Amino acid sequence: MARFNVSGLLVLFVALVLPSGALALWPIPRNLTTGTSALKLDTNFTISVNVSDSPSDLVDAVNQTKQYLENDRLGRLVVGRGANDTAALSGAKTISGLTLSLEENTTVNSIAYEARLKLEDRVEGYRLTIPNDGSDATLVANTTLGLYRGLTTFSQIWYWYGGETYTLEAPFEIADLPAYPYRGLGLDTSRHYFPVDSILRTLDAMSWVKINTFHWHVTDSQSWPLYVVEYPDLAQYGAYSAQQVYSEQDIQNILSYAGAHGIDVLLEIDTPGHSGSIGSAYPDYIACMYETPWSSYAGEPPAGQLRMTVPEVVNFTTSLLSSVAKTMPSSYFSTGGDEINSACYLDDPITSTYLNTTNTTLNGVLDTFTNSTHSALVGLGKTPVVWEEMVLEWNLTSLSNETIVMTWISSQDAAAIADKGFRIVQAPSNYFYLDEGQGSWVGGDPFGGSGTFITWQYAYTYDPLANLTESQQALVLGGQQILWAEQSAAQNLEPTVWPRAAASAEIFWSATQPGGIPLNGTEALPRLQDLRYRMVQRGLNAIPLQPEWCSLRPHACDQYS
Amino acid sequence: MARFNVSGLLVLFVALVLPSGALALWPIPRNLTTGTSALKLDTNFTISVNVSDSPSDLVDAVNQTKQYLENDRLGRLVVGRGANDTAALSGAKTISGLTLSLEENTTVNSIAYEARLKLEDRVEGYRLTIPNDGSDATLVANTTLGLYRGLTTFSQIWYWYGGETYTLEAPFEIADLPAYPYRGLGLDTSRHYFPVDSILRTLDAMSWVKINTFHWHVTDSQSWPLYVVEYPDLAQYGAYSAQQVYSEQDIQNILSYAGAHGIDVLLEIDTPGHSGSIGSAYPDYIACMYETPWSSYAGEPPAGQLRMTVPEVVNFTTSLLSSVAKTMPSSYFSTGGDEINSACYLDDPITSTYLNTTNTTLNGVLDTFTNSTHSALVGLGKTPVVWEEMVLEWNLTSLSNETIVMTWISSQDAAAIADKGFRIVQAPSNYFYLDEGQGSWVGGDPFGGSGTFITWQYAYTYDPLANLTESQQALVLGGQQILWAEQSAAQNLEPTVWPRAAASAEIFWSATQPGGIPLNGTEALPRLQDLRYRMVQRGLNAIPLQPEWCSLRPHACDQYS
Repeated sequence: MARFNVSGLLVLFVALVLPSGALALWPIPRNLTTGTSALKLDTNFTISVNVSDSPSDLVDAVNQTKQYLENDRLGRLVVGRGANDTAALSGAKTISGLTLSLEENTTVNSIAYEARLKLEDRVEGYRLTIPNDGSDATLVANTTLGLYRGLTTFSQIWYWYGGETYTLEAPFEIADLPAYPYRGLGLDTSRHYFPVDSILRTLDAMSWVKINTFHWHVTDSQSWPLYVVEYPDLAQYGAYSAQQVYSEQDIQNILSYAGAHGIDVLLEIDTPGHSGSIGSAYPDYIACMYETPWSSYAGEPPAGQLRMTVPEVVNFTTSLLSSVAKTMPSSYFSTGGDEINSACYLDDPITSTYLNTTNTTLNGVLDTFTNSTHSALVGLGKTPVVWEEMVLEWNLTSLSNETIVMTWISSQDAAAIADKGFRIVQAPSNYFYLDEGQGSWVGGDPFGGSGTFITWQYAYTYDPLANLTESQQALVLGGQQILWAEQSAAQNLEPTVWPRAAASAEIFWSATQPGGIPLNGTEALPRLQDLRYRMVQRGLNAIPLQPEWCSLRPHACDQYS
Repeated sequence: MARFNVSGLLVLFVALVLPSGALALWPIPRNLTTGTSALKLDTNFTISVNVSDSPSDLVDAVNQTKQYLENDRLGRLVVGRGANDTAALSGAKTISGLTLSLEENTTVNSIAYEARLKLEDRVEGYRLTIPNDGSDATLVANTTLGLYRGLTTFSQIWYWYGGETYTLEAPFEIADLPAYPYRGLGLDTSRHYFPVDSILRTLDAMSWVKINTFHWHVTDSQSWPLYVVEYPDLAQYGAYSAQQVYSEQDIQNILSYAGAHGIDVLLEIDTPGHSGSIGSAYPDYIACMYETPWSSYAGEPPAGQLRMTVPEVVNFTTSLLSSVAKTMPSSYFSTGGDEINSACYLDDPITSTYLNTTNTTLNGVLDTFTNSTHSALVGLGKTPVVWEEMVLEWNLTSLSNETIVMTWISSQDAAAIADKGFRIVQAPSNYFYLDEGQGSWVGGDPFGGSGTFITWQYAYTYDPLANLTESQQALVLGGQQILWAEQSAAQNLEPTVWPRAAASAEIFWSATQPGGIPLNGTEALPRLQDLRYRMVQRGLNAIPLQPEWCSLRPHACDQYS
């Protein structure tokens, strides 16, 4: 994070809420100066890339940006949607170009390459200048990834009315870089299969809010949709159907699309729990497979966990994870480790016999199992990622301090993880689970609940550093919202996720408003409205946040206003 | 409801849950006999209409049914999706035709005509026979509307695998008719505008579950999207934009599409509350228009109610409702009447001066106002429909006992309405509000809630006759679920409504399982799964009800199973 220096930029003033509307930037740049001049975008607006040997994904990003500039056609969220801006535009200058360049002496890599570096080596900052005198805008960064983030910001500047694409807030001076290196979105493709198109569309939307990690919980006990060359039986018997498999080509498409959109793919193969679907191909490897009552052996149906006492199973799992991990360009790989059910093992004759005859504990066999899988991943150059139970519930000597730990059970749990010295990704269910509030789906349970729907504004109140000491805070790499898919599929993916997942995107990119003012939902709402309407203009089914009457009148529907 | 007689049908046995899967019928027919024979649908399957001068909407319905039979391609919800049915199908007979006919001596009317009759005159019953010997199926009814319902049932019989369209449950003997004449779905198009295409798609889905009334809450304080020939200023100034108006042609398209799909359109123009948008064109007619703090004058922003003490406003409203009602083919029209805010009137100088100088009460002026609007509607042959406050909160001599009263505040309120002798449509918010659980949308309210998401299985436990005496029960015409659109728009309409709104569709069509067994969510779930998957096959974004692992294994994910 040291390769970009913003200290040279003089922040003149901070414009947060303009009388005529809202600033449509999301996440809000860290350093931002705006003015009050109208400025029109030329119909022949050009984006010049002043980068030698420009990588093809940067060229694609420039072309995509031009398409957004032409097609977004977002009317300002005021009554009349811009009809009253005609006077302001009559004398406005026209800007005809944006020039992209890299700082001197930088090595030119593709966006995808930069997006997949270790977190501490990722450089996403940029400087964007949009004058109000009609001269060209400039975008400068240290990396193509930084240029990509700047293009994303540039595309959010503009409104449209009556054939004109314009802003009323020129000039702009933006010096931006993320507060946290990890900004993710999680998706579970095991409870339901999501077609590749749905995933690509999700990656698009992630890129619009500068989310840089797709945490892909690809398998679970319900289904195994992942094709693995060395283990084709897993998908053949474990997928819902032959049509619900991510083929090698599908996976490559997702990886390269993600990379070109500045997104790293953190794949998770959850072990040793949440693995019942492996039993479809390898029934001997799974304890308590489909056992009933499921509630005795798993948090949800069906039950099934890897028999980690059996050496063949340990070898198989290690080899399987290696087979998958070696095809993944990311520096990270998650082995899961959540919700290991002890009863499943203790009631399993094979496991319990081993434990009894060898006088071993579950903790001991989990340590051996994890040592085997993690050693293999480290050997492939991957940093393992695990769920919080692996450090809070189990006492494993096999976990290197390099391991990244993902919280989920509660927003209270980070301190205990930090106490053990691990780096943290914050995904607390009580703020960031997008499936909460969909109600119970267990059959015969008409009165069962499933948490409360977490609104964007509630998620937005989350403080990733709460209750942490300064040294503990340094261990927080970022965080993410996540969609578990018990009741989500392609049909409701977009409205369930968007624009809610923009909440964490801003928490972890911006951390504060410019000038260090704490994030505040009342300030943020009009900007998020703009983002939501722009998402809809881009064809994404993002939910409305208020009645449109309120959307067109910022703050008119605030509480007791 | 007397024109159809099912007593001649001998119900031999009732098959509710087959070992090999579920029965895909929703709502479940009142009288149903199934067998265990496999039966294939001929690739040249024909539907013959043995009706003289067959109306064009019946011909369209037949063609639509043929398209569903060809395109649904719904795999059975079992592991393998039908791959294991090949053996059963090898010796199966093939059925090549369905013949539709009306009972003798019936007048042939269009489906639309039949769908718009008074509730007591609507005849929706039918008899459907599907032999298992390869001979043609027959569908008989007293009306084209009944034939339409039977076609809907017929299209739900069939599964698909590997090029074969088939059932495993022939023969079928079905004698069906609805338990309640009113089975609705409500949609609010004021908080958000829904494009005509979204409404037509909703009408499609309603027809699939035999919902027969589209309760269109078309206007409210937020916007006035309804074009009215005599009052064009209302939409010109009160709509969100010129593109967010239902034109005369749009309205005709919706009305005729609804009619052809067996659906009556109950239009609601809510008065005298929920009418602030009228003030955009007629500011003098509205009390407390956009007054702040809005929470003092309205349940939600913006405030605004018709100044019902002003004779010009009473005349305007009466003329406006008449202008709209006369273009509506329905026998019913709703004048709303919910949530009248007294403070709005008492703080309004014009209203309070009138009340003080004439020594009149709000109740008195509301009575005069209602008498004027309802008399005009009755003069047009319309039966007025009102919300429950009009009889429970106000004491109006102007309400004829013909008036239909819609509950919403609580499922406990029907008895008090019945005590006053009014007929009832049940739309209790605590069971039937589809927007509950979306969270607070008021700005600056991060911790605000908005009820709990009401799952289909909870809505399905609703008993429309609970706490009513036998004579009170006779006043219940039916009921509906409803979507208020503060946080819903085209982007999330389908996943928010479907398949949840099928819950009330079955409550009010079937009332019980065949044989009088009470409806039961555990029995219903596999059938509703079938319906949801069929909806998806037909292109509707209906939400999944369980992880697909469960969907393919009926009852495996029941509680503690």
